[in-house]
Amino acid sequence: MTATTERTHNRAKTPASNLQVNLDYLAPHLLGRWKDLRLIARNFARDPRIIRDPHLGMDEHRERVFNQLSILVSEAQVLRAFPEHLGGKDDAGGGIAGFEELLAADPSLQIKAGVQWGLFCAAIHHLGTPEQHDRLLQPAMNLTVPGAFAMTEIGHGSDVASIATTATYDEETQEFIINTPFRAAWKEYLGNAALHGTAAIVFAQLITQGVNHGVHAFYVPIRHTTKKGRAGTLLPGVSSEDDGLKGGLNGIDNGRLAFDNVRIPRHDLLARYGSVAADGTYTSPIESPGRRFFTMLGSLVQGRVSLDGAAGVASKIALTTAITYGNQRRQFTSTNDTDETVLLDYQTHQRRLLPLLAEVYAGHFAHDRLLDLFHAVFSEEGMDTPDSREDLETLAAALKATSTWRALHTLQTAREACGGAGFMAENRLVQLRQDLDIYVTFEGDNTVLLQLVGKRLLTDYAKQFKNIDGINMARFVVERTADTVLYKTPLNRAVQTILDTGSKRRSAAELRDEETQRELLADRVETMVEELANALRPAQKMSQQDAANLFNTHQTELVEAAKAHADLIQWEAFTKALDDIEDHDARMILTWVRDLYALHTIEQNLAWYLINGRLSAQRAETVTSYIDRLLLRLRPHAQNLIDAFGFDETLVRATLLTGIEQRRQNESREYYRQQRARGDAPLHEKTTKKAAH
Amino acid sequence: MTATTERTHNRAKTPASNLQVNLDYLAPHLLGRWKDLRLIARNFARDPRIIRDPHLGMDEHRERVFNQLSILVSEAQVLRAFPEHLGGKDDAGGGIAGFEELLAADPSLQIKAGVQWGLFCAAIHHLGTPEQHDRLLQPAMNLTVPGAFAMTEIGHGSDVASIATTATYDEETQEFIINTPFRAAWKEYLGNAALHGTAAIVFAQLITQGVNHGVHAFYVPIRHTTKKGRAGTLLPGVSSEDDGLKGGLNGIDNGRLAFDNVRIPRHDLLARYGSVAADGTYTSPIESPGRRFFTMLGSLVQGRVSLDGAAGVASKIALTTAITYGNQRRQFTSTNDTDETVLLDYQTHQRRLLPLLAEVYAGHFAHDRLLDLFHAVFSEEGMDTPDSREDLETLAAALKATSTWRALHTLQTAREACGGAGFMAENRLVQLRQDLDIYVTFEGDNTVLLQLVGKRLLTDYAKQFKNIDGINMARFVVERTADTVLYKTPLNRAVQTILDTGSKRRSAAELRDEETQRELLADRVETMVEELANALRPAQKMSQQDAANLFNTHQTELVEAAKAHADLIQWEAFTKALDDIEDHDARMILTWVRDLYALHTIEQNLAWYLINGRLSAQRAETVTSYIDRLLLRLRPHAQNLIDAFGFDETLVRATLLTGIEQRRQNESREYYRQQRARGDAPLHEKTTKKAAH
Repeated sequence: MTATTERTHNRAKTPASNLQVNLDYLAPHLLGRWKDLRLIARNFARDPRIIRDPHLGMDEHRERVFNQLSILVSEAQVLRAFPEHLGGKDDAGGGIAGFEELLAADPSLQIKAGVQWGLFCAAIHHLGTPEQHDRLLQPAMNLTVPGAFAMTEIGHGSDVASIATTATYDEETQEFIINTPFRAAWKEYLGNAALHGTAAIVFAQLITQGVNHGVHAFYVPIRHTTKKGRAGTLLPGVSSEDDGLKGGLNGIDNGRLAFDNVRIPRHDLLARYGSVAADGTYTSPIESPGRRFFTMLGSLVQGRVSLDGAAGVASKIALTTAITYGNQRRQFTSTNDTDETVLLDYQTHQRRLLPLLAEVYAGHFAHDRLLDLFHAVFSEEGMDTPDSREDLETLAAALKATSTWRALHTLQTAREACGGAGFMAENRLVQLRQDLDIYVTFEGDNTVLLQLVGKRLLTDYAKQFKNIDGINMARFVVERTADTVLYKTPLNRAVQTILDTGSKRRSAAELRDEETQRELLADRVETMVEELANALRPAQKMSQQDAANLFNTHQTELVEAAKAHADLIQWEAFTKALDDIEDHDARMILTWVRDLYALHTIEQNLAWYLINGRLSAQRAETVTSYIDRLLLRLRPHAQNLIDAFGFDETLVRATLLTGIEQRRQNESREYYRQQRARGDAPLHEKTTKKAAH
Repeated sequence: MTATTERTHNRAKTPASNLQVNLDYLAPHLLGRWKDLRLIARNFARDPRIIRDPHLGMDEHRERVFNQLSILVSEAQVLRAFPEHLGGKDDAGGGIAGFEELLAADPSLQIKAGVQWGLFCAAIHHLGTPEQHDRLLQPAMNLTVPGAFAMTEIGHGSDVASIATTATYDEETQEFIINTPFRAAWKEYLGNAALHGTAAIVFAQLITQGVNHGVHAFYVPIRHTTKKGRAGTLLPGVSSEDDGLKGGLNGIDNGRLAFDNVRIPRHDLLARYGSVAADGTYTSPIESPGRRFFTMLGSLVQGRVSLDGAAGVASKIALTTAITYGNQRRQFTSTNDTDETVLLDYQTHQRRLLPLLAEVYAGHFAHDRLLDLFHAVFSEEGMDTPDSREDLETLAAALKATSTWRALHTLQTAREACGGAGFMAENRLVQLRQDLDIYVTFEGDNTVLLQLVGKRLLTDYAKQFKNIDGINMARFVVERTADTVLYKTPLNRAVQTILDTGSKRRSAAELRDEETQRELLADRVETMVEELANALRPAQKMSQQDAANLFNTHQTELVEAAKAHADLIQWEAFTKALDDIEDHDARMILTWVRDLYALHTIEQNLAWYLINGRLSAQRAETVTSYIDRLLLRLRPHAQNLIDAFGFDETLVRATLLTGIEQRRQNESREYYRQQRARGDAPLHEKTTKKAAH
């Protein structure tokens, strides 16, 4: 019996239900808008040349991953986002969709590719001029020039505006002089910096004619290229250090860079948003330095977008392993005397895994919407407006923070649900978790990202909050746009307390109601933002110091409001996605999954609903009991619901998914059957004692 | 300036408070009963021969750790628990105390030592007869015989009673025949099994005269010993497989063992709790097979006890790094224009780290009590009774589950609080987390352990619940013992709703009150157990199948009740420990820490208190605002509170603790100071624009 038939077999034995998830319908449906690209990428992620060898040490892993990049180049997908005349497809969304699936092969390969094409090339693409595209982009795209993305400095992680590297214009030679003034200004944690990069996009304070025009990006060669086309010795004035061993992603050569009076030609300032004339005169199409800075940074949002998708892939892989194993593994004596109970029939096991399955579905549909918006901004005519960009950035920040934390939690829960087997590298959960760990703080620390989201909610609520933290609040101020469903909360809606009824049955029915769920989730965001706005209102009349202190005492609430907003976004996306599901059974079952997502979210914040009088004590108890009912209802469908994401044995590559557990059970069952048939099973001491009595 | 003086320096700059934690008093006080042994062990954990080399691959790491064991032998501490006439000290508690501290050197070394002395030797010690001690213990103690502890089977992780390996007595030859009947019965995840072990304690069903007397332990040689004293080829009939790479603890050679008609002499059944005469007659000092089984397993409780302590050490190391760094690292502009804000001054940062600090203190004092009880049972005259053993097992299960999950959460939170630096192996957080991962499922899966605790609570509540889960409930039934403070809840106390008052100030004052805290925490356990007992009562009159189903639908609540019990235990231990603190300031400040622990615990379960009418909505809000006040009050003492545990730079060995961040800041501050002094700092574009207007 193959592993697949065993999984089907086990599924058939689960309690009957009148409804069935039709995998032939749901699996292709979930692949979404870039279905073909995802399927191609997944096939690629099965390629033995591409998949991770879990046993490699750091040095060998780095070398393997670097060599894998060349294989990626010959696959057109990694170049899809780039201009057509340079070999791309002008297809931003499709590029990300294919990229996300690469995680199944090896997160190190994915992130190394992300450094090369998603950061190094993308910076040239988004921050460079057409002339610079023609000159610099192709060698970068085809890997003739492996590059680093030198933004972060040791001294300033998330605070890019404060970096200390300088690029000072020298009119005499028409060059920029790149300098690292002190140790804290070293560029840090850069992929391709320790070994493989021959150039870097270096972010530095642009200084010309005695004026600092803020952070700009510069194309800076850092190493010679050897005759074999590999990175050679460092160029004069460039220093590099190796970050060495990390908690994960050890296939990437992260390192540090510093510059000591390194001169680059004037035309290698990436000049789309700011340029310097021969005489040193600075000009920019964007007048405000603040808006210019955030426009530049915003054009690099694709990192966050793709991490949201990649984190979703990791969570799906984790649950595929844990749910499949939970459907096969038996432990502790059952009451039918021969077979022990399957893990997923235990309530605690359902409680651990099924709400996460609902979360992963919610995250999946929200990511589809994020990718739609991303594609519109970067590849659809007329959609690239300051407003749509800011909406995109807010949505990406909220979802990236949510999905990367979720991935860590899901991987860990799955590993624990698989017991000791989950700890073995061959089942991939531990190494995936090690690799994904950094996702929660890179491309924007999650806590910082959620503060940005929270500030956006506040500025949406009232423009007078431009300066609440005494710093650069203005940067987050945007006009309201037409499309509000995803990233706006209906802040002007009156808060309504839901009336409770005496009947528990009635309560459960109401919690199942879509409008009730929306109201409970939206109300929480609205109320939290409103309360926060009221609490911060006095800041307007305070000194900068006092305002900052006041803001700090509400920082936790700000983050909580952003999380509540992310919850709502995902619920909205899930609910909207239900409309598109044409298969009746799939729609019904996914509606239960959506209900589970809603109630699980509400349950996690139950105290808030009680304190704020949105749920009575009686209704609050119903939340938990209705979740219990949903778990029982969904339990028979758990295997199909996770299989529908299409991460089969060949993608997950976990020994546990090879049917090994089932074979062992069959063998032991047969052993005892034969023993009974022969009649030579030993008596148990207890039995003999009972007989003696 | 050395790292230490920098830390002190920074401390001095934190907001003033009239109280100060006197480190000279608190640090030695916290070392507790086995202070000298802990200090010796810590010194040992600084030895360059002993500490982990983070860069070693699996094979090299395994070899290094094996060789380190010999160094441990020459240090007497690992042998303390063993009989004095064999070179030990009959000092169970002291042995564990020293062992726990070894984690700072390398968790692989600690667990490898745990396999050799805490499992292999301890099994001979606790399950063997005096004759067997004299014959088998010394070669095991001095590492002439490295050994595996072959209990777990692939097919039965936490369910030891169901293992399938057999030991069948052969009267003809007076031998036991050890057999692995099928693949699922292979012994799995055993340290020393893949490479280094030459013998194993094998747990198998003892069958003699056609009767299975249940699980017993057998001493089974598995490999030849080479002339150089290392493990050679496998003995006939023994098979071994290597588990290979794991998520962590890769310094240990975990592997599998199987036995094909391996014969061992009759006298190598470890015979303290059951022996077989030459003619095959089985006798045991314990009549009931169930009680016999649990007595044997219970004698191995030290694994859980020591993991509780080791997990505490890991959490202390994690917080030492994160709090020290949080006190030095500055990020985002402050309002005073020159220095940025120190991370630990941000509310979100305080919220992430300080409640964990309170938890770690609570866990610390609870562990002290656990170790006291452990020492009493195993090394004090007349204390080894069935009751005290069961109390010990319950307490160990509750605390091991709590502290190991806490360690993972703390390590991860600390790693995130250190940003990218936290992800670097040189700061140790990621590798410690990788190593500690398995702690939550080995030596008893935490979820299973909490169910055992929950069942114990139920049986304490009412004896009629002997059979609630239709299985072996009897095993958890115990008589109530005299010492109830730690592991008993005052179940008979009437539930009292605390009266709310109109004044918020009054409410906060009440939450600070020790009796209020105790009542809130104890009431939750009592009520949950009572409700659970009522819900399960019908099971008595049900079929076994229906009873099992009913039990399953309340499994989550059972686990929740056990967690609430663990919370209360730790609060009680913390509160009791306050009495012993003679320094006034330290006692005051630790009382705030205890309050934070209580309120943080209550806040995490706030919905329960609201639903059950124990807190009004108004009072519930006060919980959070009082926590905020405690955070501000404790923030200036955070560094001293974590330093008091004594895990200094030389034990933590994180680059972040070398003062590197402070030096970088000093350098950049000086750079800008000189620039200003010279008057050659560039103007900012914003400034020039303002000037132009």
